[in-house]
Amino acid sequence: MPLDMPAGLDRATIVERFRRVRKDSEALAAPLSPEDCLLQSMEAASPAKWNLAHTSWFFETFILAPHAPSYEQFHPDFSYLFNSYYNGVGDRHPRDIRGLVSRPSLDMVYAYRKHVNEALTAFIENAEEKQLLDVAALMVLGFAHEEQHQELLLTDLQHAMSFNPTKPAIYEDAGGAVAHAAPSMRWRRMEGGLCDIGWDGDGFAFDNEGPRHKIYLHPFELANRPVTNAEFIAFIEDGGYETPDHWLSDGWDRVRMEEWRAPLYWREVDGRWLQYSLFGEREINPHAPVCHVSHYEAAAYASWAGARLPTEVEWEAAASLFPTEGRFLEAGVPRPPAPAPQPEGDELLQLFGDVWEWTASAYLPYPGFAVADGAVGEYNGKFMSGQMVLKGGSCASPAGHLRVSYRNFFPPDARWQYSGFRLARDIN
Amino acid sequence: MPLDMPAGLDRATIVERFRRVRKDSEALAAPLSPEDCLLQSMEAASPAKWNLAHTSWFFETFILAPHAPSYEQFHPDFSYLFNSYYNGVGDRHPRDIRGLVSRPSLDMVYAYRKHVNEALTAFIENAEEKQLLDVAALMVLGFAHEEQHQELLLTDLQHAMSFNPTKPAIYEDAGGAVAHAAPSMRWRRMEGGLCDIGWDGDGFAFDNEGPRHKIYLHPFELANRPVTNAEFIAFIEDGGYETPDHWLSDGWDRVRMEEWRAPLYWREVDGRWLQYSLFGEREINPHAPVCHVSHYEAAAYASWAGARLPTEVEWEAAASLFPTEGRFLEAGVPRPPAPAPQPEGDELLQLFGDVWEWTASAYLPYPGFAVADGAVGEYNGKFMSGQMVLKGGSCASPAGHLRVSYRNFFPPDARWQYSGFRLARDIN
Amino acid sequence: MPLDMPAGLDRATIVERFRRVRKDSEALAAPLSPEDCLLQSMEAASPAKWNLAHTSWFFETFILAPHAPSYEQFHPDFSYLFNSYYNGVGDRHPRDIRGLVSRPSLDMVYAYRKHVNEALTAFIENAEEKQLLDVAALMVLGFAHEEQHQELLLTDLQHAMSFNPTKPAIYEDAGGAVAHAAPSMRWRRMEGGLCDIGWDGDGFAFDNEGPRHKIYLHPFELANRPVTNAEFIAFIEDGGYETPDHWLSDGWDRVRMEEWRAPLYWREVDGRWLQYSLFGEREINPHAPVCHVSHYEAAAYASWAGARLPTEVEWEAAASLFPTEGRFLEAGVPRPPAPAPQPEGDELLQLFGDVWEWTASAYLPYPGFAVADGAVGEYNGKFMSGQMVLKGGSCASPAGHLRVSYRNFFPPDARWQYSGFRLARDIN
Amino acid sequence: MPLDMPAGLDRATIVERFRRVRKDSEALAAPLSPEDCLLQSMEAASPAKWNLAHTSWFFETFILAPHAPSYEQFHPDFSYLFNSYYNGVGDRHPRDIRGLVSRPSLDMVYAYRKHVNEALTAFIENAEEKQLLDVAALMVLGFAHEEQHQELLLTDLQHAMSFNPTKPAIYEDAGGAVAHAAPSMRWRRMEGGLCDIGWDGDGFAFDNEGPRHKIYLHPFELANRPVTNAEFIAFIEDGGYETPDHWLSDGWDRVRMEEWRAPLYWREVDGRWLQYSLFGEREINPHAPVCHVSHYEAAAYASWAGARLPTEVEWEAAASLFPTEGRFLEAGVPRPPAPAPQPEGDELLQLFGDVWEWTASAYLPYPGFAVADGAVGEYNGKFMSGQMVLKGGSCASPAGHLRVSYRNFFPPDARWQYSGFRLARDIN
Repeated sequence: MPLDMPAGLDRATIVERFRRVRKDSEALAAPLSPEDCLLQSMEAASPAKWNLAHTSWFFETFILAPHAPSYEQFHPDFSYLFNSYYNGVGDRHPRDIRGLVSRPSLDMVYAYRKHVNEALTAFIENAEEKQLLDVAALMVLGFAHEEQHQELLLTDLQHAMSFNPTKPAIYEDAGGAVAHAAPSMRWRRMEGGLCDIGWDGDGFAFDNEGPRHKIYLHPFELANRPVTNAEFIAFIEDGGYETPDHWLSDGWDRVRMEEWRAPLYWREVDGRWLQYSLFGEREINPHAPVCHVSHYEAAAYASWAGARLPTEVEWEAAASLFPTEGRFLEAGVPRPPAPAPQPEGDELLQLFGDVWEWTASAYLPYPGFAVADGAVGEYNGKFMSGQMVLKGGSCASPAGHLRVSYRNFFPPDARWQYSGFRLARDIN
Repeated sequence: MPLDMPAGLDRATIVERFRRVRKDSEALAAPLSPEDCLLQSMEAASPAKWNLAHTSWFFETFILAPHAPSYEQFHPDFSYLFNSYYNGVGDRHPRDIRGLVSRPSLDMVYAYRKHVNEALTAFIENAEEKQLLDVAALMVLGFAHEEQHQELLLTDLQHAMSFNPTKPAIYEDAGGAVAHAAPSMRWRRMEGGLCDIGWDGDGFAFDNEGPRHKIYLHPFELANRPVTNAEFIAFIEDGGYETPDHWLSDGWDRVRMEEWRAPLYWREVDGRWLQYSLFGEREINPHAPVCHVSHYEAAAYASWAGARLPTEVEWEAAASLFPTEGRFLEAGVPRPPAPAPQPEGDELLQLFGDVWEWTASAYLPYPGFAVADGAVGEYNGKFMSGQMVLKGGSCASPAGHLRVSYRNFFPPDARWQYSGFRLARDIN
Repeated sequence: MPLDMPAGLDRATIVERFRRVRKDSEALAAPLSPEDCLLQSMEAASPAKWNLAHTSWFFETFILAPHAPSYEQFHPDFSYLFNSYYNGVGDRHPRDIRGLVSRPSLDMVYAYRKHVNEALTAFIENAEEKQLLDVAALMVLGFAHEEQHQELLLTDLQHAMSFNPTKPAIYEDAGGAVAHAAPSMRWRRMEGGLCDIGWDGDGFAFDNEGPRHKIYLHPFELANRPVTNAEFIAFIEDGGYETPDHWLSDGWDRVRMEEWRAPLYWREVDGRWLQYSLFGEREINPHAPVCHVSHYEAAAYASWAGARLPTEVEWEAAASLFPTEGRFLEAGVPRPPAPAPQPEGDELLQLFGDVWEWTASAYLPYPGFAVADGAVGEYNGKFMSGQMVLKGGSCASPAGHLRVSYRNFFPPDARWQYSGFRLARDIN
Repeated sequence: MPLDMPAGLDRATIVERFRRVRKDSEALAAPLSPEDCLLQSMEAASPAKWNLAHTSWFFETFILAPHAPSYEQFHPDFSYLFNSYYNGVGDRHPRDIRGLVSRPSLDMVYAYRKHVNEALTAFIENAEEKQLLDVAALMVLGFAHEEQHQELLLTDLQHAMSFNPTKPAIYEDAGGAVAHAAPSMRWRRMEGGLCDIGWDGDGFAFDNEGPRHKIYLHPFELANRPVTNAEFIAFIEDGGYETPDHWLSDGWDRVRMEEWRAPLYWREVDGRWLQYSLFGEREINPHAPVCHVSHYEAAAYASWAGARLPTEVEWEAAASLFPTEGRFLEAGVPRPPAPAPQPEGDELLQLFGDVWEWTASAYLPYPGFAVADGAVGEYNGKFMSGQMVLKGGSCASPAGHLRVSYRNFFPPDARWQYSGFRLARDIN
């Protein structure tokens, strides 16, 4: 627990950021019916209603219950129903049947949100200095946690909606029609040597982003932008999904078992490729980054292209030369991935936003990483197995959520996130 | 197709029965939220919304579309979405993901019902005599079909709701507190000989209930009432679920694989048995018939009790001596099973209503059974494999739906229907 | 237990029949290596070595151990290893890993057979009259049991060998090249009425074949011979496996899930159909009965052909007019199914031998059937669920094993037995 | 392809090493019956016969077929049957049914070995200098490949034999009764800094061991010996398998799903722990390293012990200070793991031999790693996903097979290898 107030925070800022993150979540859910909010299409995805409730549960469980003496729990069942995976705070409802919780209703979940919002705002506004210090870091963790669930709300919703044969358009595309072409692919050379990687800033970061530590980097080249849909179609048309040559063994098994023929949500109709998203089913934009590919597909494409994926430290070392800016989720308004703007000079483009970029790195602890005490310590460490790191955020990541040190992680077969990739190669 | 009007039918009766069956379905769904109506807890069960839509689809597809020339389809997607299993009328939405159809909304489904109701009422009211004759039998099939889905709506809903850890009570028990004891178990002797079995009446019956045919019956005895909860608890307490002695081999496999310890929806808390139903979780009434048991459990109990299950012809031969009366679903109001009334003389009790009774008979065609032409012919025949016959209807069967010749059928492991059983034994 | 000696039995006959059945089993296994004898390709099939050991275990467990006072068990582990499914005689080795029992070796199993053979022969030869009476019926059950396992040895072996890409020929075809054509298909009319069905003879029959009981039979017609390969190919070529029209619902699910395109062991090479059997992979004989089809395929063909399968009582009533003769397994020498001989007059052909014939009847107890006491009672009754009856025996059934009342049973999806079918139809 | 002869090699050495490795494999298989050699207990494990054949297939396919002009293939089916996973050399027999290949027989496989041995020996002895150079590196790869399969033969055999309820002892323990105690656990400090990791020697190494490359190492401490059985029992007794606290999330899922309660092959009888191995079922030696644990169990133990697993570079940096010596497989004679000898001074003990040591590192390519051209290139690269690195070899690794740079790899749930672990911790 921090002894000093986190940098840039004060009472008013906490209240304002809390208000904003809570409002943004609800803005995303605004076009959804109670029925939409109940959908769960696989164990790894959750209903929107559950996401809305669970984020409230987080503030209730880790801040209000232990720190606000007069707080009255909204409903005794909710701590069981809306715990995600924290074994340290008691039993939880099985993950695979979250979609069967029609009661409490969505209305009740909104009432729960309101209850937590009011109680927490009052608590923060009236907390003694010591109390405020005690909870400030947890509040910021709660903001980041809710931002993560905003992205999950979108990816889980898209997955569930994709099974609806009427292919509903949930949102209007606020991004405007982006019609420009992708810039041509170029390699940027990165010199190696000793460098420091990982978080050491003053503000908030997840525990898994640190400690900042020295690594030795070998020289490499990195593509100026992610691989595009047009480029990926060339891989498909060259039989990419039909021969094992470029695939990891596990990836090829998956291709055959699940009959992968293209990225998730793609289908070919009369020779044209369509892709379903929350904006409906549309013809694919050849210039936009390829999206909804697994690590396996990214690695296979890279091998086919005579390249490889960058490691997470290569990616971070290169990306730290650029500002953390890009096409993110804007205050509760989702936007689709779009082509990179034309570069000025030697820039690396679209590092942030648009699509998460698979790296060649397994998600493992940094040297010196230690799991935090208590239930909050279950946040990241126990997932450090069987997953690959993704970097840079996506069009569904809330603006301000990302850092260059941010380490997202998913199993190598996951395709329902906004996941793409860029190429790297060795310098001989 | 019939040349004459089915017995007891005329234009006004058709309209009135149509109005009533449609209204009863909606009365059942009245306490349900849109979220409740979307729940699907297993492939064999459907969301309430789907049941409400599919019954409309049936009238639209088999009556309005082919017979009402000016009928305008409500929505082009619905014939795909709400077809259950009729291969003859085109593709259909996969059964296991009906619970992912949040759109069309429940409101839209009610609008669909209204559209069909109005169009069909207008069509019937204005049909020429010839047209009326053409559709009368189909209308009656549609009534019976919708009544079946009223029962399924309840059983499927109970299954889905049972996963909700808050154990919601959906309906109030309109049946009143039934406190009387079950009558004592007695055997009624039935002489054998040649007899006729199956439907031959003038009114409606499903195709599988006929043709009426001669069979040779061996003398037997039948219990005067179904096995009660108290009796079944004795089986449990005698280790019924712990030793293979009395089980069919497939049944014992299921007991071990799914860790059955009691009927579905039962749990033991502090030495008391509770059972979840749509009236909430309640202590078990020892005098009521045991409910939510599989054929396997019924057969194991019977063996343990030194008896057997009756065959369907035994059951029908005995039951045809009594009126088709019992505790059924009353006009959109569900009621739980209750103890049998005290008998007067040598009566067989609770033959109809309360609980479906498993028989020892596999669901197979009667001699001379022929599948009807066209898609309607898919109604029953293709399911004549791997299922067992149940007789007599349940507390969730609409009053008026049952006949003594009625053949319900489910796989031997099914437990989510209102299924119980009564004992029979040979006469040596 | 019988008080009198079963008909036709005396001490010498028992010894001689025992000697012969034991020898025949070993003749079947003679061309098999220890490795061949270990193969197990699915849970429902067993290694040949297990079949050889289990039949010895049966005599040891049910006759020697309880009745022969001085008998010394061959090996203490064997009662666990070679018990099939008799819960009443203790724990047993899991069925799905019988193929992992490399030790005891095949040699050891032959030593076990020899030990049991010698002990049992000595016991029978020296038994007092009372002892002999006590075990005579069990001995005959043991003969029938071992004959059943001779057939299973062949069907299980063929299943396992079919996975060997070298398609080994295990036996030479002792049946000679049968080149004649199948007789043309004709219907034989059977009048209905009251008749008696089931076993009532003096000799041995399984418990499930009785009691003999009265049934009322409706008039029907039965095909003079089973459906041939040529006829079945017509069904395939007419898209039989590609449209659901004629399939039972469960059958069609299986077709799609397991991608059935033809009977088991068939493959099409350059427009010719080949079938693997223990005689190697050979071109299909168009005149021979179709073999290795499931009940589902039989029922679908029948529907496609405008007919149906006969019920078991129809089959038995018709077949009892003819002698129980046909192409069976000859003293340890397997033979493939072959075309029916040309008929003389109005005969029903190939009722016995060649292929088992699927009926339309579920395998259920006959009226008055009671399970025998003790572990032997587990023989048949507990399997009376989820299976269909087959009649008439096959080319892999030992000669002398069959009776017209014999009821074989397998699940409707089973294809690895020598199973075919003949058509029936109603008389209007 | 190398232009010069690999260091330490000449024609005679190649012949001698070939002879020895081939003989050692057969020595391992000597006590096995043909039935034993056919056992396959899971898809990831292969029959001993397959291992014996596949290693011959390797020499035949990669050396004899392309390089020895007059070589005659032993049998045309074998290239299909005994290809493991090389897509580049054609189709292959499905891995999960290798245990169904009773034909070719074990005798035939030995004849195949002899055929390849003679042909290859003759080829090497008579090869022109240029030819010899062409194949020398491949021969050494073939030796290493066969040594790997010697270890797999043992681990796969143990897995299969463990299902035999008679718990057979296959080998006699040639290691003698090792009765001494394990030395006490001590930490050895390792300073960090830049260092070089990976293979750069003159002799043979697998492609995945290089290129040698610079890394930056953070200071750490490493345990002087692996965790012992006694220490692991303390973890079990402290409820290690009963609470999720110390487990990776995937690991805990596996614990519950597969009901892990102890390392593989352990069972508790009357309060004593027994472990099955190829030497039979024996009481556990508390002083020997724990063996047959998964990465999940190793990581959970480490967390419970307040430590962690070493990374592969930490392990290699520390181990490279010591000679590559330990208790390995001795010329076809297996030995069980044994306690570490008492140390002299500050030694790290049992780094090599006894048990493979799980590391905290995912199996990923080293910087600059490139997949070799052709089918041999499928050797390692395509498995660089979803697996963890193990170091140091085991009692089942042939002596001479190991290097400090050797990278073994298995999925984190694998337990059937001789896998243990040692602890590491950060220096703050």
